[in-house]
This record gives sequence, C-alpha cells and structure tokens, in this order.
Amino acid sequence: MIDEATFFGEISGTREEILEATYYALCEHGYAGLTVGKIGNYFDKSQSLIYHHYDDKDGLLLDLLEYMLEQLERQVPFPEEPPEDYIDVVVDEIFDETGSQDGAFTQAVIELRAQSAHNEEYHELFRRSDDFVRKQLTQIIRAGVDKGVFDVDDPKESAALFQTVLIGVQTERLTADTKTIAESKAEFRRYVDTCLRS
Amino acid sequence: MIDEATFFGEISGTREEILEATYYALCEHGYAGLTVGKIGNYFDKSQSLIYHHYDDKDGLLLDLLEYMLEQLERQVPFPEEPPEDYIDVVVDEIFDETGSQDGAFTQAVIELRAQSAHNEEYHELFRRSDDFVRKQLTQIIRAGVDKGVFDVDDPKESAALFQTVLIGVQTERLTADTKTIAESKAEFRRYVDTCLRS
Repeated sequence: MIDEATFFGEISGTREEILEATYYALCEHGYAGLTVGKIGNYFDKSQSLIYHHYDDKDGLLLDLLEYMLEQLERQVPFPEEPPEDYIDVVVDEIFDETGSQDGAFTQAVIELRAQSAHNEEYHELFRRSDDFVRKQLTQIIRAGVDKGVFDVDDPKESAALFQTVLIGVQTERLTADTKTIAESKAEFRRYVDTCLRS
Repeated sequence: MIDEATFFGEISGTREEILEATYYALCEHGYAGLTVGKIGNYFDKSQSLIYHHYDDKDGLLLDLLEYMLEQLERQVPFPEEPPEDYIDVVVDEIFDETGSQDGAFTQAVIELRAQSAHNEEYHELFRRSDDFVRKQLTQIIRAGVDKGVFDVDDPKESAALFQTVLIGVQTERLTADTKTIAESKAEFRRYVDTCLRS
C-alpha cells in the first residue's frame, strides 16, 4: 500500500531529507531502538539541523507519518482498472510483501500504531489514515456494485472487513510464517470470489 | 478469548500474586508506561519479593504471558456445543469486548506483540499462542465439515483467516470506533454464512 519510492522520489528540501533519514533509520532499528542520533547517521547535513526542527524521535516519526499520509491522500488516484480486476490487486497488496524494505517498515508501523494506546497524536494519525483507506476501498467496491460485477449487502461493511484483514496481516507478519499468511490469503480470495463477486 | 477470572480465580502462591499484580498494572498503565514499581502498587507483600524473582518488567510480562498461555492450553476444552452454533460464539468473541478490563488488556497485548519485532522471547510466545488458537479453530471447523454443516476448501485456510481477523480487530481497536468494528463484524458474519455453512 505504501511505496517508499513514491514518497521520496522527488526530495525537495531539508524536511524531506530529514524524513527520508527517519524512514530508513526506522526500518533498520524499529521504534524501540530508534534514537535521533541514529536518524542523524542517515542524514548528510549537520545533525543540529534535526534538533533545530524537532524535539524528539516522536516528533520526527509523527511528521513522517503526517507527510506520508498527505502524499497518500494527494496521490492515490481512483484506479483505472475495472473494479473486478482491481480487487485482485488489492488482495495481493494486502497479503504480499513487495520489496525488502517493506517488511521492516510494516513491522515498525505496528510499533507506532501500538503507541496510539497512550499517545493522542499517533491515535489521530492512524485514525485518519485508516479512514482514508477504508473510504477508498468503499469506493472501489461500490463501483463494482454499480457496474453489476459485485453483489454485497453494504460496500462500507465489505470495506471494513478488508481493512480488518489488512491490519490483521500487518500485525500477524510480526510472528506468523509465510505459509500461514498464504493460507489466510487463499481463504480471503475465496471470500472475494464467493461473497463479493456477483 | 482470554478471561482474567479463569486465570486468577485460584491464586495459590507468590508467583500467581505477582503475576496478578502485573496483569492489573499492565491494564492501567500499558506497556510503555509500566514499571516494576507500579506493579508493586498492586502487590500486597514486600516489593523486594518481586525483584527477588524477576530482573525487569519484561521478565514479569513474559512470565505473565507464559502463565496465561499454559492455563489456556490446559483449560480450553473442545466445545460441547455443535460447531454450527459454536462458530457464532467464536465470531462474537472476536468482535465484542467483554468486560471493562478486557479492552485495556487487549490494547496492552498489541503493545507486547509489537515487541516481537525485536525480542525473540515475545516472538516465541506469540507464535506459540497463535499456533494454539489456530489449531483450535481448525478443529472446530473440521468438526463442522465432518458433520456436513460446513463446506470449505480447507479447514486450515478458514482457521487462518479467522485468526487474521481476530488479530486485525484487536489491533484496530486501538483507533477504530465501534461502528467500524460492527460493520466489519456484519461482513464477517456474511462470510461465515455464505462461505462456511453448507
């Protein structure tokens, strides 16, 4: 769902450079092991620039999440593929890891998500991000219903289950082996074919 | 899925008393905010007893998870209800919070699960716990297939999706509102009725 190249392809300023460094340091060290100093190791300019802009690692991580979310909200187009094909792309995106960096980033995102229990700013950002993704999913499913290729009770309910499964897979990846995730995918595909398609 | 009364109903020694204190302190403070001192506030005897048995809060939390898992492995009976009824109980257990303490505990468990990214002991315990739950689910679904009330491709695949949804709901609960979770439940019930039941 999140493609780093999309985010940092056109680095255009100090903020972007700092956030890119934060992204790579987070992938390497995870949330618990991350320090501002370690982020500095990925940053070519003076580390004092980081301290000038941010108070601590949470400030950096919250701005990274905010930045990625803004890019996502701005860039995600409504898919050109027909909904009956695009839904397969969505299932693949939910279950398959793409790129070696993605796994580390997904793990770290679960650590950040866990901060939502006690930190209102993380809570707010994940809520906004989840709302956005769920609305996109709802639109895709509704387009399929309008076209007559999907038959569901309520596109919002289907989208909500897609999101539960997306977040479930992301969290499971911390501990589950690939075989178990592949089994879950096979059954979810059966759900899509049986419960979603007309 | 986890009922605190089951675990601490028959407290029989210092270890159980310390773990009970750990449970309640974890529910109140979450992982990030937890200290051995705060656990001591829930413990009637001398705090030095805690330090005598455990090195740090992770030692306490890992022993708590281990203890709960042992109880779960020992106590969970094969359900007496027929599989076509029991599957509804499972769906309710996945989606509904039961008891006020449960929500706080579930949130804390996601924080502990996130530690799996960097801590092999948490990784091992969650893996073992997930394997146990998935095997139980597989048995229930297979019993339904044998009885002719369920019709699935492979009970293991169905059980894997149930587990993905269970972990997804637990993680979503950190940020999602109850309406979104209810929508996801409605769709998952539709899956059970359409894809699982013969």
